[in-house]
Amino acid sequence: MRSAFQNQLDTVNAELVQMTTLVGSAMNRATQALLDADLALAEAVIDGDAQIDTLASDIEERCTDVIAQEQPVAADLRVVIGALRIAASLERMGDLAEHVAKQARLRYPRPAVPQELRGTFAVMGGVAEAIVSKTGSVIATGHVDLAPDIAAHDADMDRMHRELFTIVLSPSWSHGVEAAIDVTLLSRYYERYADHAVSATRRVVTIVTGDPYVGVSLA
Amino acid sequence: MRSAFQNQLDTVNAELVQMTTLVGSAMNRATQALLDADLALAEAVIDGDAQIDTLASDIEERCTDVIAQEQPVAADLRVVIGALRIAASLERMGDLAEHVAKQARLRYPRPAVPQELRGTFAVMGGVAEAIVSKTGSVIATGHVDLAPDIAAHDADMDRMHRELFTIVLSPSWSHGVEAAIDVTLLSRYYERYADHAVSATRRVVTIVTGDPYVGVSLA
Repeated sequence: MRSAFQNQLDTVNAELVQMTTLVGSAMNRATQALLDADLALAEAVIDGDAQIDTLASDIEERCTDVIAQEQPVAADLRVVIGALRIAASLERMGDLAEHVAKQARLRYPRPAVPQELRGTFAVMGGVAEAIVSKTGSVIATGHVDLAPDIAAHDADMDRMHRELFTIVLSPSWSHGVEAAIDVTLLSRYYERYADHAVSATRRVVTIVTGDPYVGVSLA
Repeated sequence: MRSAFQNQLDTVNAELVQMTTLVGSAMNRATQALLDADLALAEAVIDGDAQIDTLASDIEERCTDVIAQEQPVAADLRVVIGALRIAASLERMGDLAEHVAKQARLRYPRPAVPQELRGTFAVMGGVAEAIVSKTGSVIATGHVDLAPDIAAHDADMDRMHRELFTIVLSPSWSHGVEAAIDVTLLSRYYERYADHAVSATRRVVTIVTGDPYVGVSLA
């Protein structure tokens, strides 16, 4: 028979997985809004962030209640503390998706990204989707064998982020300062999104393997 | 007589205040390194971030131990959970100071900021110092009457962040795309630094007043 603690932990875990779904969907739709200059979609993402924030807040409340009621110690306590940090990372990923959507809205009806960089941002959106869906799997199952994949996606994102810097700084850049800044900030939002997915995964790795948090490598 | 719980909480609190001092010093020195193109100082800030990360990790360990050993509930538990989140915000502020220092190092021996914007970044550095030192006071004393001041500093930082956008996007901008991107990213680091100070302060306000986290306003 499962304990009350275990049942409550299952609920927290399901809510964290639900957050990965929500922030994954938010970033997918934000990318779509960015590439299509779709104002209605951008505003839906912006409006939808409140739901993500509320869920993060609910998870924190539930974790606090679980600690107060069940008084877990040792590994059990670390799971709950880890859940608090994962919820914070996922909440921030929702904010970053919202930032992408706001950039799309700011430049509407013009596209915020020059035609020749649409492909790169489409790939960054795809990598964001892959990394958050694998992070969701790691949280759902505790199977940390996806961690190297997640690290590889993060490395891809970092590489694209650096490439975009090179492109906007090249002498052949013809879109001016505003577009260069838009591309740089957007690129940073995707890169930070991936970083937070890595942080969330590291937390699960720490919980599953018992390794201390500092110095844990996904590679 | 003070309880063991209260003594441990005092230690956590002292460590959080120490973190505010460290991340305040890091941002001050990063600003100095930026304005003076001082490579040695930039590298000192970059090297020093490990100490901040270790302290954040120590605080998390101590909070976990306090919960396991003392099994606090209700308001006491909320204080410890709040300390975890404040430590995470302060750790991120250290990262942002490191980012400023890295930008100074990247452009060395050239200054990363055009002459006519040095004054603005000096003010942003000053506001960062003010906001983190007041955040430290709020954490140390629990006196939340400084919260409106902190909100005002944050509003100042946001205003300067917007002004810098206007400047790099104006037709009279003569420093090219690279400098525009440097200014935009640096400005964002200061703005995010202030945001995290506000988050940390909000946590204290929540703990002191008992208001729920979502929707708490500092203004």
